[in-house]
Amino acid sequence: MLYLIGLGLADYEDLSLRSVKIIKKADKVYLEAYTCIIHNTLEELKQFFGKEIALADRNLLENTQILVEQAKYQDIVLLVPGTPIFATTHTDLILRCQNDNVTYKIIDNISIFNVIGHFGLFSYNFGRTVSIPFFTDTFKPYSIYDKIKLNIDCNLHTLCLLDIKINRDYYNNQNEFSFDPDNKTKNIFMNANTAIKILMDCEKHTKYNILTENKKIFVICRFGHPTQQIFYDTIQNLLKKDFNGPLHSLIIPGPMEVVEKEHTENFFVQNKK
Amino acid sequence: MLYLIGLGLADYEDLSLRSVKIIKKADKVYLEAYTCIIHNTLEELKQFFGKEIALADRNLLENTQILVEQAKYQDIVLLVPGTPIFATTHTDLILRCQNDNVTYKIIDNISIFNVIGHFGLFSYNFGRTVSIPFFTDTFKPYSIYDKIKLNIDCNLHTLCLLDIKINRDYYNNQNEFSFDPDNKTKNIFMNANTAIKILMDCEKHTKYNILTENKKIFVICRFGHPTQQIFYDTIQNLLKKDFNGPLHSLIIPGPMEVVEKEHTENFFVQNKK
Repeated sequence: MLYLIGLGLADYEDLSLRSVKIIKKADKVYLEAYTCIIHNTLEELKQFFGKEIALADRNLLENTQILVEQAKYQDIVLLVPGTPIFATTHTDLILRCQNDNVTYKIIDNISIFNVIGHFGLFSYNFGRTVSIPFFTDTFKPYSIYDKIKLNIDCNLHTLCLLDIKINRDYYNNQNEFSFDPDNKTKNIFMNANTAIKILMDCEKHTKYNILTENKKIFVICRFGHPTQQIFYDTIQNLLKKDFNGPLHSLIIPGPMEVVEKEHTENFFVQNKK
Repeated sequence: MLYLIGLGLADYEDLSLRSVKIIKKADKVYLEAYTCIIHNTLEELKQFFGKEIALADRNLLENTQILVEQAKYQDIVLLVPGTPIFATTHTDLILRCQNDNVTYKIIDNISIFNVIGHFGLFSYNFGRTVSIPFFTDTFKPYSIYDKIKLNIDCNLHTLCLLDIKINRDYYNNQNEFSFDPDNKTKNIFMNANTAIKILMDCEKHTKYNILTENKKIFVICRFGHPTQQIFYDTIQNLLKKDFNGPLHSLIIPGPMEVVEKEHTENFFVQNKK
């Protein structure tokens, strides 16, 4: 059997009792570290579970049939930061299990999507989520801004997830990261400042008049982690801030309901006290 | 300090290690049972945690200042099925804490929103979530159907959450429920059949031509629970089915991408084997 288990957002204390049971009984446990980050080292995880945990390297994840073959005879766990299948990364693995009649079980966990109920906005007022990739001279997908515009036109808020590029040797460099997309030796995370600049570039290109220097948006830093920080401020002010380590996300609010406005203002006034 | 802790979808094994620690240390633990259901009895929870757990009745939840007052001097936990603040139910409690300078912490958990990455559809292709209330002769909010139409017009899928009416004496009648909105003595859950009929009524009224008898939609039954069942079939066929106990949800797919179509068909073919 193959288990895909979400690790949550902070550390192994985010794991459910159900997940811990399965991991402790499993014949083999792999940790996937390419689509997100967690705040435990591999060593800490091994120690906590009292068993070997292998790092699922890119080779394994690009040849997932290996996992499926093992799962025909053993209980295999793949630990995934956040929740396993919000991104499409592991869909291939599930299809392979289905094709080979290997039973599988997905154990969900919390993820950045949980943010949409926090900080004053109503979860029912969120539209489609948008991923912001690094723009280059030859790659400028302005269509991401169309999606935000569409949400706003429908009176909806937009959660924006920022690009990540994890290096193969991530776990040897866990505390080293770069916000520079051209860095060749470290893990690369887009920071909120870059994301806002990309959106302002989209604004300049499309002239939709959605984002101006005085528009207030949310910056979410390290959601679910003890060092979590949330900002709600004008783009002008946010661009001057240092948001510290990854992960960062944005929320571009659509028109707010009266109660949402009250809750948001209250939340950020109270937290500045 | 006040802790709002999500219980997840199935039973206490969905609780994170972090949550269990907090609950065990807390001075007082309340269980809220009015906005969702869980599959443990109060007795089972008491036994597992080895401590008293009080049922937060509607009176307490309508006078949440009581909790805030207690949290000024003690560590108070309010256990909430699913995740605490996707619905707006507990926003009032948070505002009160903020106003009284009572520290609070929200521990998220999995909820019905985790379904959007499962069963073939991409989570990025979901639009706003829609709640379907019971229609009566004098209350027919056809606007819910406008929201589904808007999602479809934007090529997005819609998760539909179905109405729940929990009775005060829920925990004495845990295994008794009714799908009939007029039942006066039991907990009332909308089943998928009723929800589909309401949507077909909306179709008839609006003539949007979104839902026809041959349109295939998803019915999600008891998501995250061991008895979970998922159906993907035409409305005509689904209306004839008995989906058994609550909770039920629907997904009305917008136009699917090629890969989404493949995954969905594959998932449901494989699961019929």
